[in-house]
Amino acid sequence: MAKQKKQPRPKAETPKGFRDYFGAEVVERQAMLRKIAEVYHRYGFDPLETSAVETVEALGKFLPDVDRPNEGVFAFEEDDKWLALRYDMTAPLARVAAQFRNDLPAPYRRYTQGPVWRNEKPGPGRFRQFYQCDADTVGAPSVAADAEICAMLSDCLEAVGIERGDYVVRVNNRKVLNGVMEVAGLSGDDKEAERGIVLRAIDKLDRLGEQGVRDLLGEGRKDESGDFTRGAGISPENAETIIAFVQATAGDNETTLANLDRLTEGSEVGMQGVSELRQIADLLAAQGYGPDRIIIDPSVVRGLGYYTGPVYEAELTFDVQNEKGQTVQFGSVAGGGRYDDLVKRFTGQEVPATGVSIGVDRLLAALRATGKIKGEDAGPVIVTVMDRDRMADYQAMVATLRNAGIRAEVYLGNPKNFGNQLKYADKRRSPVAVIQGSDEAARGVVQLKDLVLGAKLAQDASLEEWKSQPAQSEVATGDLVTEVQAIIARHQ
Amino acid sequence: MAKQKKQPRPKAETPKGFRDYFGAEVVERQAMLRKIAEVYHRYGFDPLETSAVETVEALGKFLPDVDRPNEGVFAFEEDDKWLALRYDMTAPLARVAAQFRNDLPAPYRRYTQGPVWRNEKPGPGRFRQFYQCDADTVGAPSVAADAEICAMLSDCLEAVGIERGDYVVRVNNRKVLNGVMEVAGLSGDDKEAERGIVLRAIDKLDRLGEQGVRDLLGEGRKDESGDFTRGAGISPENAETIIAFVQATAGDNETTLANLDRLTEGSEVGMQGVSELRQIADLLAAQGYGPDRIIIDPSVVRGLGYYTGPVYEAELTFDVQNEKGQTVQFGSVAGGGRYDDLVKRFTGQEVPATGVSIGVDRLLAALRATGKIKGEDAGPVIVTVMDRDRMADYQAMVATLRNAGIRAEVYLGNPKNFGNQLKYADKRRSPVAVIQGSDEAARGVVQLKDLVLGAKLAQDASLEEWKSQPAQSEVATGDLVTEVQAIIARHQ
Repeated sequence: MAKQKKQPRPKAETPKGFRDYFGAEVVERQAMLRKIAEVYHRYGFDPLETSAVETVEALGKFLPDVDRPNEGVFAFEEDDKWLALRYDMTAPLARVAAQFRNDLPAPYRRYTQGPVWRNEKPGPGRFRQFYQCDADTVGAPSVAADAEICAMLSDCLEAVGIERGDYVVRVNNRKVLNGVMEVAGLSGDDKEAERGIVLRAIDKLDRLGEQGVRDLLGEGRKDESGDFTRGAGISPENAETIIAFVQATAGDNETTLANLDRLTEGSEVGMQGVSELRQIADLLAAQGYGPDRIIIDPSVVRGLGYYTGPVYEAELTFDVQNEKGQTVQFGSVAGGGRYDDLVKRFTGQEVPATGVSIGVDRLLAALRATGKIKGEDAGPVIVTVMDRDRMADYQAMVATLRNAGIRAEVYLGNPKNFGNQLKYADKRRSPVAVIQGSDEAARGVVQLKDLVLGAKLAQDASLEEWKSQPAQSEVATGDLVTEVQAIIARHQ
Repeated sequence: MAKQKKQPRPKAETPKGFRDYFGAEVVERQAMLRKIAEVYHRYGFDPLETSAVETVEALGKFLPDVDRPNEGVFAFEEDDKWLALRYDMTAPLARVAAQFRNDLPAPYRRYTQGPVWRNEKPGPGRFRQFYQCDADTVGAPSVAADAEICAMLSDCLEAVGIERGDYVVRVNNRKVLNGVMEVAGLSGDDKEAERGIVLRAIDKLDRLGEQGVRDLLGEGRKDESGDFTRGAGISPENAETIIAFVQATAGDNETTLANLDRLTEGSEVGMQGVSELRQIADLLAAQGYGPDRIIIDPSVVRGLGYYTGPVYEAELTFDVQNEKGQTVQFGSVAGGGRYDDLVKRFTGQEVPATGVSIGVDRLLAALRATGKIKGEDAGPVIVTVMDRDRMADYQAMVATLRNAGIRAEVYLGNPKNFGNQLKYADKRRSPVAVIQGSDEAARGVVQLKDLVLGAKLAQDASLEEWKSQPAQSEVATGDLVTEVQAIIARHQ
């Protein structure tokens, strides 16, 4: 201890890119995650909580030619092993699925919720620690598993408070794209570069428009700055096929699927992909999930490069103002798909898997944007301290309130300045202040100050209204609970 | 991707000292934490979730003379700063209380729940990541804050399922010990070493017995191996005072406090300490917390070295078998106390604080020991797949069950071998298997297999009982929900 005194005072600061969460932020996120967990659980998914720390080897971030792993993870060496904080929930699932493959049920449905860490440059709204909330089915080759996750995703959104009609789950299939590529003459190992260009091009449809994508599929495209991006160099006719694929979405699944039938004709993998989408649509229809909730939509291209089969994305369709004040659709809050090499890296065995990740912060922002959550926690009733000697009486009052389920506390700062007690109550967003001096105690009464009404009156009421609706009232001490409950109920 | 193939396969293993939590382990811990959070919240405490990562400087683990911090933390260097995973919840609270001192309400009551990380040698049942669940009041000098936390701790234990009578919260006060030390001639800067020996000696009362402690207070003690521990060297009369202090606990608070009055006579700090304990007892009595729940107990010595005022500890008093098969009291599950230098390290300003930490794993173990939680999650109803072509029908059934709030899933593995489907249902602890072949479908019925009853019958029932209580029954498809609910209810 003596040594510490010589050191300069440490700075009280959150490390760069990290943040703290207070009060309502914690409560609201937990409430949302709990509702999602309930849906996941009802669908038969089991919770899994892996440790935050993994071996770098298991995370697949090991680079033999550098001193330390640095591909976006926070890593440290312990006992001659490099360990790192998990950067997502999929890598730990792969490790668990391999490590416990003889004990886990097959298929293994698991959900998980918790923080992940990314060693990336932080930016506005981009933090180095954030929550993920995933559900995956490991070991189920059938697209029934994909359909189930789409239905579950739809249920999750409604469970947290997104109204039906305010969201849509869009489903596409990597195999259909592969088939379309084949039809467009882009199959074969020697066309890998071209396929990459096509994937990147269609991913930019939103930004570049149809002509921009067409340019990238053909010779290439010069952007506004004059920079030239080389294109895939495919014929206009074949480019047409690709464009038709991303624009194949019709108002109903039947028409969309018929469009895709036409575009994949002659490609085995393509026809298999369309057949899978048709099965998914049928399975969902049988469960009552129509196109008002889940639609087949070949314009979903995000993740097509990563996934191997069906991909799905949940979008919120209501309008919000973006940072520039423009009205835009809220957009994507969740996505996922099928990937087949989950466990292979560990065991050599291919295990099919499909899963979804809900963007916790995005979905919370959406609930705030729609007013479903308010960012405010209900403050406690404050029992003020008029006579320091009567602390036992105040504690007894507060115990009575708590025993009735009311959030309540005694003011525990220095009670000398009564104004400070009311300022404290304001800061805590307290609905009611309870006041009892020795005079009131002798008469067996307490004063109740309705702080919500008080704040309103102070803001905009005329004197007449103030008189007709007194923000402070005297009640019998025996009626404390019922009177406080009545005031709280008045403002709900 | 091509490069990765050359690398050897990574090992699928949890890093040493870390573990994964599956199913019921996750659900039960979360349920317990939620109940505790509800109590904390009702007492007016606000949730706080700090980032897992802190600067090493803020954690107070910076050692200028070594390459890297190694005092029990997992640390890593980023952007020329040493960061580390938090090792408890108090250091981050200190940082937050200093960083946000102008914005936070004063007093600031906060609770927090989450994992902490210790870079220590793992052992049986000792992991490098585990949960903490703390509540602290910062900026309240009054012992009313300590009394409140004791009452809250009592409420928490009952909220998670510990029966009244099966626990006791014991309260002591560092100031009383200081006073007793003074009376025993151990005050003054030159007696720091002796006071340290006394603290360590009384902490060993349980293990060494009264005579052992007496030896350590006097000349010293030779243990069984012959090793000699030097004692504090105080006179037998003064040692008597110390011994009387740790044995001052009587059956009721009044007698205990009278004993302490006698032992601290003449010491200002000691008399203040007893007065504080008397206030705590009075405040708790006013709230209805008698000695059946919370008692003044000077034999509580754990933490006396660390804390500066009242200390408290919750013990479970029922018997369990320890690893050696001996019957012992379950023991401590939570503890805390008052500490006054929380924020000082950052700002130079002394801020009083008091708080409690509940041992999450210990309390979970206690709930398991008393049978309050079973370590088993309710498995889903399994809708089996008899005809692969009729997957849509099975999905519709499962949707009907889920919409009625029943946890249910369709078997998504290879349906060829029906035995595997039932094995899967067993592994999932499924209560009911739903079976519908084409014959049953044509007749508008389903078979329901009561798997709980089936398991019981397979284990120990005679053929007659089997016949009178058929584990499999045929019901109309329209009655699926009510019949499944009836079977589940039967086994609850």
